[in-house]
Order: sequence, then structure tokens, then C-alpha cells
Amino acid sequence: MYAENISSPRDVKRLSAEQLPQLCDEIRRILLEKLSRHGGHIGPNLGMVEATVALHYVFDSPSDKIVFDVSHQSYVHKMLTGRMEAFLDPQRYDSVSGYTNPRESEHDFFNVGHTSTSVSLACGLVKARDLQGGRENIIAVIGDGSLSGGEAYEGLSNAAETGTNMIIVVNDNEMSIAENHGGLYRNLQLLRDTQGRAECNFFRSLGLDYLYVEQGNDVNALAEAFSSVKDCTRPTVVHIHTCKGKGFAPAEAEKERWHYGAPFRREGGTPVAAPADDEDYHTLTGEFLLEKMSRDPRVVAISSGTPGVLGFTPENRERAGRQFVDVGIAEEHAVALASGIAAGGGRPVYGVYSTFIQRCYDQLSQDLCINGNPAVITVFLGSVMGMNDVTHLGFFDIPLIANIPGMVYLAPTCREEYFAMLEWALAQREHPVAIRVPGGAVVSRNEPFERDYGILDRYRTVVEGDTVAILALGAFFGLGEAVLRRLKTEAGIDATLVNPRYITGLDTALLENLKRSHRVVITLEDGVLDGGFGEKIARHYGPSPMRVLNYGLRKEFADRYAAAELMRANRLSDELIVEDILETLNGK
Amino acid sequence: MYAENISSPRDVKRLSAEQLPQLCDEIRRILLEKLSRHGGHIGPNLGMVEATVALHYVFDSPSDKIVFDVSHQSYVHKMLTGRMEAFLDPQRYDSVSGYTNPRESEHDFFNVGHTSTSVSLACGLVKARDLQGGRENIIAVIGDGSLSGGEAYEGLSNAAETGTNMIIVVNDNEMSIAENHGGLYRNLQLLRDTQGRAECNFFRSLGLDYLYVEQGNDVNALAEAFSSVKDCTRPTVVHIHTCKGKGFAPAEAEKERWHYGAPFRREGGTPVAAPADDEDYHTLTGEFLLEKMSRDPRVVAISSGTPGVLGFTPENRERAGRQFVDVGIAEEHAVALASGIAAGGGRPVYGVYSTFIQRCYDQLSQDLCINGNPAVITVFLGSVMGMNDVTHLGFFDIPLIANIPGMVYLAPTCREEYFAMLEWALAQREHPVAIRVPGGAVVSRNEPFERDYGILDRYRTVVEGDTVAILALGAFFGLGEAVLRRLKTEAGIDATLVNPRYITGLDTALLENLKRSHRVVITLEDGVLDGGFGEKIARHYGPSPMRVLNYGLRKEFADRYAAAELMRANRLSDELIVEDILETLNGK
Repeated sequence: MYAENISSPRDVKRLSAEQLPQLCDEIRRILLEKLSRHGGHIGPNLGMVEATVALHYVFDSPSDKIVFDVSHQSYVHKMLTGRMEAFLDPQRYDSVSGYTNPRESEHDFFNVGHTSTSVSLACGLVKARDLQGGRENIIAVIGDGSLSGGEAYEGLSNAAETGTNMIIVVNDNEMSIAENHGGLYRNLQLLRDTQGRAECNFFRSLGLDYLYVEQGNDVNALAEAFSSVKDCTRPTVVHIHTCKGKGFAPAEAEKERWHYGAPFRREGGTPVAAPADDEDYHTLTGEFLLEKMSRDPRVVAISSGTPGVLGFTPENRERAGRQFVDVGIAEEHAVALASGIAAGGGRPVYGVYSTFIQRCYDQLSQDLCINGNPAVITVFLGSVMGMNDVTHLGFFDIPLIANIPGMVYLAPTCREEYFAMLEWALAQREHPVAIRVPGGAVVSRNEPFERDYGILDRYRTVVEGDTVAILALGAFFGLGEAVLRRLKTEAGIDATLVNPRYITGLDTALLENLKRSHRVVITLEDGVLDGGFGEKIARHYGPSPMRVLNYGLRKEFADRYAAAELMRANRLSDELIVEDILETLNGK
Repeated sequence: MYAENISSPRDVKRLSAEQLPQLCDEIRRILLEKLSRHGGHIGPNLGMVEATVALHYVFDSPSDKIVFDVSHQSYVHKMLTGRMEAFLDPQRYDSVSGYTNPRESEHDFFNVGHTSTSVSLACGLVKARDLQGGRENIIAVIGDGSLSGGEAYEGLSNAAETGTNMIIVVNDNEMSIAENHGGLYRNLQLLRDTQGRAECNFFRSLGLDYLYVEQGNDVNALAEAFSSVKDCTRPTVVHIHTCKGKGFAPAEAEKERWHYGAPFRREGGTPVAAPADDEDYHTLTGEFLLEKMSRDPRVVAISSGTPGVLGFTPENRERAGRQFVDVGIAEEHAVALASGIAAGGGRPVYGVYSTFIQRCYDQLSQDLCINGNPAVITVFLGSVMGMNDVTHLGFFDIPLIANIPGMVYLAPTCREEYFAMLEWALAQREHPVAIRVPGGAVVSRNEPFERDYGILDRYRTVVEGDTVAILALGAFFGLGEAVLRRLKTEAGIDATLVNPRYITGLDTALLENLKRSHRVVITLEDGVLDGGFGEKIARHYGPSPMRVLNYGLRKEFADRYAAAELMRANRLSDELIVEDILETLNGK
């Protein structure tokens, strides 16, 4: 066994070229063992075993600096840079994150989780090196899927101008999360087909030197290629052809399914946990949209590289035909495309995770809202109950989206209200509409919900009471109900409960009306407080005697948090909230 | 004269091919006349006269749809589509905007002002057409300068996938606002040098068909080329080589200076108004940075296609050498680059207009703030006194930037404080720091300003009083002083005046302390209220009896507004504010 003795890249370098394949085999076994017990990014890491070993065999990290794009393929890098225990010892599996992290190791340079950034970040390291007279190699590792993002292109085009050492390893496994989309991928295909010899070469067209390695899972072929570009004096692309999921048959066969996954049995790849038969908003949305599509050829669903968000499995994509568009990882294009489709009379629905809508503020503002086109955006996992890696938080979409003029951002409280809003959003022709799909499990409420949301900013009073009014937004409506009940049982207060529905505007008539018989208004929102919904309510009541308590999340980059703990730390429980309300009422 | 009789594209089509050059001459004369008297985008429009005439000669607008990128080159299009009077009649010069605008004409499809969006928007029109079985031509017109933006690339790569009619006219005048930057531009050069015949072709590498037209200012050559691609069934690039500023010698000679300009004398091109010898923050910042650079080789200034923002004239760029980087129009890359440089030990300062920082929220959050790298961003024209086109508003940067965890966003009130903050920001190694350069004229205050801003969120009490506290942020500090004076003279109130300095956090000790002898707190900010600074103050005081009045701008897309009027409409005058304060104090 070599792997167990590797505590730094120096230990890799001590091996002979002949020993490297065995090291790779061991690493792949260890990886598979952890992945099968722990889950994680499966395909991307299995495909990068040889390339990562070769990188550390040839280059001198951390003096030479390797920047991983998205960094979901950095597990092997972690194994080779002092963190092997986190892969060998089940007790320590969670001692490392799923992404590069400078706090974990001097071999990690950035905390990364969104795609298409590595080349630009590496350009920064190049510039810093050149200004300070350094001589180390700067290496960016970027997958073919990430190349569809505009930031990657901006980085590549600018890398060519640096004119000094920089190595860009393009890990071409012929896949994004799902299949790739965009004309670029025909060029990658051409380059693979011609062993990199085609004259028409995307990378060369941007002024970069270029080298092709067909055997992207042959560690010695890779080491040779990397050696040939080490200390190069021009920005150089090394295009390596790898196999996503390499070495694990199910992952090689079904690449989309095995991109990321929960624990599984290594025999056959069946999941350890029984598949949940709970309903989820992704699947429900997909079914809804397919039904709409069958009645209206103008309806079109848009994804930016994550078709599963909208429930568009490969089968559903087949059914939708040209009424489904995956633009690849290109969120900016997705929003502008949706705006253009709406301007042309189509009925676009763009489905996106909260964390990735961050990539298109300007497109929301300029391409969409200034033009007032009736595109629909469904925002998923905008919630404390969403993804919990620091790079994938879903807390920030309200300040991002809701402060743009012209946007109608809706917060349904449950399944029925969500689909009522989606139905309306698709039919209307007046506004860009975003809908914040509730986080957590699917909740049903058997009550009739409004079908027309065209008169904007009308909140709905669900329970009429006095003294205290609870404005409970979206997924936190249930918390609002709990506060309502506790106020009654603990203090005998018959409070008012309001479902605000509209994040983007104030129901000033209702708010003014509350002044007559209420002394305290509380707001509950499933997101960061700063720039959010509650602050608008606080501003409205600022000049008045009304007391306002805003509940939501503190502005911070929480990382790998437990939702229940983070909520409690932010006093997001009916018990703590009622405590605060009573204290305020008692005039403290 | 043909031009005066053109009231729609039909009138262009009635002319013979032989008559077109004369029409172009007339249009250029009319254009120059208006530009010289009114100012506007000079170079881009002079270069596009022939191409625009040829487009309308060949295609059938508005059935065929032309989408102009940035649309600052759409003046000739406006002249040919029913808006000639706005160019002929000085009384009506302002009846059209400087950009395409669907409210002005059925020939305009989008309100556009930021670059790199046309291909994506046109892709939307293509998709809508295809879903509905239409057959019209969809044309995007994009300048070479705009091609550096990531959204343009995402659009081009996805355009290739549509596989139906779409024509992308690349207007290559060898210039962005300043010179172009990025490896792409070597490929455009190669294509020009080889008359489009080089095998290594950026556009073809993305899967697009391609046609080159060397004579981009020969209307008949263009008409012939456009005719050849009309009704094409594949996405096709028509790469035309034009001359920016064509037909006006000073603009042809000095392309950067003549991109946009104020009224000028047609003889010699000298400005009509005497050059203002007022100081401006661009020039001052450039001088400051050049001085820093001369002492510290790690200091580097970054621009994304607008080097003038930081005062980097061609001469200053020369002086800075490799300590100045223009990345072209690529704001995302600029932020990631700055983060990388800071991570590598450099001292980057990225200078950008408020309206364009909108293009990089995710880079600010992910590439920069999650990593906590000490890059410096100077945000210019974040102010009601900035650019006033709806596409270039500077109101929204506070909600955009200030709600990101880890960011320190500073609001200096004057020149001295600005440079004290910039000095500190460059020296410190702890935080990403953005500085909101005050809008309006340069204001000096002869008082000693803090040199160390490292203890975050400490507001500065400038005048200590009682009853009313005025929190006057950044450029609105002067308004705060006016309110202070008027409160004294009108009501005998000795109010407190606070310079908050930090937009990103609350000085809770100071705010709590105000409770002791103040009943009203007002906030003044030079930006939109929603998601802004004032709302955080309102949230803080929400549970308390303190009355809070927030002043700033309503959330709306104002267009071509007069600053004084917009301010008054938002009650941003000392008179109106004091009226409100007294009303609140009197317990209404």
C-alpha cells in the first residue's frame, strides 16, 4: 500500500513512474469506499484520480499553485495533501469539506463551489506572481462543463494576454452535470476526434497554446504532458480526455445519475437508503410544466445545467422536446433568453437554485425587468433548509431579487399556493415574476387560494386578531402559525396572522390598518435579514409607534451548518419569538 | 435629399442600390450636425451608417427583428424607423433616448444599455419564433468590444444550438471604448488579415456559420452580404470590418476620445464648452494610484473596459505599465482577478461604475467575500447625481454590495475622507473593501479624518445634540448638515449629526446611546431605499420607541430624469425633511 503513507505531495514524488498506477488504483478504492458510505461527488472525482496524482507528481504544491474549478473534483487532491485520514477513517469523513478550502490546507487557495471561476482566479495569482517576480507555476483545473459559463470565457480570453506562465488543464469528460450544451462542445468533440490536431480550435482562437492528451486516465501519459508544460512561459491549455466515473461501472454507464449521490452499495450501485417516496417540488413542477406544454406550444422550460431542478429527467426532456432548453452552465444567458422568449410571445419558465440566481443580477435588472417582459423564474432551495455548504447557501435571493424595480417576487406558503401562483405567472403578460419555491418538505393546505395575483402587493389576512400581527412569509408561514398558537396559550393573545405573498412590495393599506388594534408586528422570513422583506416593514412603521421585530438569518456565511441549530441561533423558534414579543409588549 | 423623406424602412427599400451611398452621406451629415450640437455616442454611430442602411435595405423590420447590443450605435436605426425628426429638428433632439426603446418604436425590441446581451436576447426571439412557427429573420448586431463579455459568449455558444435562422452581425471597428483586451482580439485581427479565411476561427469554433465583409463602410457590399444570409437556416455570423468615427477626421484619428462626447465644433472637433477645470474623482484617483504604484510594485489598478473611471488616460496607462490592467468589458473576470491578485499578495484596486458592478454580484460574493481577500473596489457614480439613463442608473449598488457578508462597504463624505479610506483599504490585509466614491462635485472638508478603519462599523458623531439624530451617509452628508441647520433655525432644535461611514454594519453602541436623548433618527442615503442602509437602522430600532425616517430613492427605474426633480419627488430637501421631522415630533 502506497496511499496510506502519503501525507504530502512529497510522498507522491518519491514513487517511481511504475508505482503510480498502483497508487491510483488504491486511491480509487479508498475513494469508492468513502463515497459508498458517505456520498458526495462521485463521477467527477473518480475521473480525476490519475490527473490529480500526475499534477502532484510533476508540480511542487503549494509553491506551484493549483486552482480547482468548482472544486467538487478535489477529493484526490485532498488525499494527497495531508488529508488522507479524512478518506480512510470513517470517523473523520466529515473533517474535510467537499470543496477546496484554504483553512484546511496551504495547498488550497480558494474556497470555491460555483463553476467557471478558476481561470480568472488563477489569472490573479499569475498577476500577483509577476508583479512580485515569482517563478512558480500557476495551474487552473477546469471541467468541460464549466467552460460554458461566461466567467470562464472572460478568464480564458484574458489569460492569453498575461503572456507568462499559466497552465489550464481542461478536464474533458464529455459531461456537465447532465449532457453539455452549446456550440463549444462540438469543437471539443472535433478536438478529441482529431487528437487535438484540428485547425479550428476554440482555445487557440483565444490566443492560448494548446496540448491534447487522449489518455486522460493514464497517469504516466499525464505526467509526461504536465512535465512538458511545466515552467512554460506562455498560457497553455492541456486538454485531457477523461472518463467521468472511471473505474465504477454504474457511474461510467449512467454519468448524470452518478454526478453526485448519497451512500450506495458498491455491488450494483443501489442506494443504501430506500428511495424516499415523498413528493418534492422538482418533480411536481416538472409534471405541471409538461402538462402545460402539452396544451400550449409556447410554454418552454429553461435550465442552466441543472435540469433536475425543474424535474426534467432525461425522460421528461425527451417528452418536452423543443419545449425544454438546457443552456448549460450559463445563468446569464438563461435569464436573457427567457426575457427574449417572453418578448417574442413565448411562455418561458426558468428554474434555478437560489445560490445560482446570484450569477445573473444584471440580467434580471437590465435584460428582464427594465424591459418588463413576462418571463417566469422559479427559485428553488432559497431556504435555511437548502444546501448548507458556504458556497451554496440559499439565504441571499431576497435582497438580490426583491430590490429590483418591476420584479414581482412571490412567496407561496405551500404546494397549492405555489401552483396557483405559477399558473397565474405563466398566463399573465404584465410582469417578470419570480416565485420562491418553499424550502423543506412539501406542505399541503386544503384551502382555496387566490388565482389572480395581478393586483400587486395585497397581503392576505389568514387569522384576524389584535395586539400582535405576524407577517409570516413563504416557508415560514408554519412558524407563524406556531407563534400564533403559543401567543394564545401562553399569554391569551388572539394575534393576527398574515400571509404577505408578495416579497417585492408593501400592502400599505393593510399595514396602516393594523395600527388600529395592534402594538407589535413581527416578520418571519426564510433568508438573510439584511436587505430582506422584514426591513421594508420596519421602514414602513419607522415613523409610527408600532413596534416591529424582524426574524430571519443574520448576515453571515454559515458553513455546513445544521438547520435546526442555525435557526435557534437566530431565535427562529415559536418559543423564543413569543418570549421576545411578550418582552416588547411589557415595554422593556 | 433622400434622408428627409425617410419615415420608415420602406422608404429605404424604394431607393436603388446606386442611391444608397448618397443616403449614407446625408445621414452622416445629419448625424454629425446633431452630435456636434447635442453630444452623444459619436464614434459608434458614425461607423455604423452604412451597415444600418444596408440592414434596413435588405431585411423587413419590424417583421424581421434587429437587436442592437448596448444600442449606443442605434442612432441611424432610429433615423430610418420613423424618428428622423429627432435628428433633423434641434427642438426635438431629446425626443428620443440614446438607446433602443420599445416605447419609442415597434422597430425596437429591447431597452438596452449594458453590453454583451444582444445575442442572448435574440436567441430568445428565435426560440419564440420557432415555437410559434414564424419565419422572420432575427438579427443581433454586436460590436467587437462587447464580445469580451461573458454573456455574449454564452449567447454565441448557445446560438449555435438553435440550428435555425439567426444572423449575428459583428461590427468590428477594432475598438472597445478604449482599445480591446483579450486573446479573442488576436483572432479578430487574424480574420481581418486573412479576409475571414483563417481556419482558426473563434466563431466557427463555437459552431456558427461565418461570412467576412472587409468593406464594412461600403453600403452595397454590405447589402450584398446581408442578402446572401437573409432567410438562412443556420445561425450565421457576418463579420464586418468598419471604421469607428468614419467620416469625421478627429473621431477617426482619436477613437477613444470620440467614443462619446459633449457638443463640439465640426471644424477641428474642439469642444463647444470650455473644458471644466474642476477637479474630479477619476483624475484624483488616478494620480493617487500612480503615486502608490511608484512606491509599491504590488499595487495594480484594474479596469473593465472603462479606464477613464480610474483616471487612466492613455498617458497614465503608459506610466503604470504592468501595474495597470484593462480586462476589456468583463466585469466578472475583473472581480475574480482582483480576488486572485489579493490572495497572491498583490494590492489590487478595481475601479467601476455603480451600474456595471451589477454585473458581478456572484463574483463579489463567491470569488471575493467568501474568501475574504483584501481586494479594493472603488465604485463611481453610485448617486442620483450620476448617469440618468434608465439602463445606467447608479442607485442600486448599496442593496447589491452591502448585503454580502464579509464585505466592508465604506461611504466617504468628501475628498479627504475618500483618500483616507482608500489609503487604509490598500494597506490592510483583512477585508474585501468597497468604497462608494461620492457623487456630484468634489467636496473638500478641512478636518482630520480617521486613518484606520480597521475597527469596523464605528460611526462618527460630528455634532452632538439631542432630540433628533441625522445619520447622513456619504454624499448626502451635506444634506444632513442642511437639515441640522434648518432644525436649529426653524425649531430651535440642536440635533445630532452622524457620519456613518460604514454601509455594511451597524454601530449598535452608538445607536443604543442615541436612545437616551433622541426621539427621532433620520437616515439619508444617495441610493434606493429598498435593501439599503436606512432600512437596517429602521430594523435596529424596530422594537424600541425610537421613530425612524428613512430618506433615499423610491424603488423605480427612473429614466432621463433631472436630479433635482427626482430628489424633490423623494422629499430629499432639507425643507421637506424638516417638515417631516417636526410632524413626527409633534406626534402625528
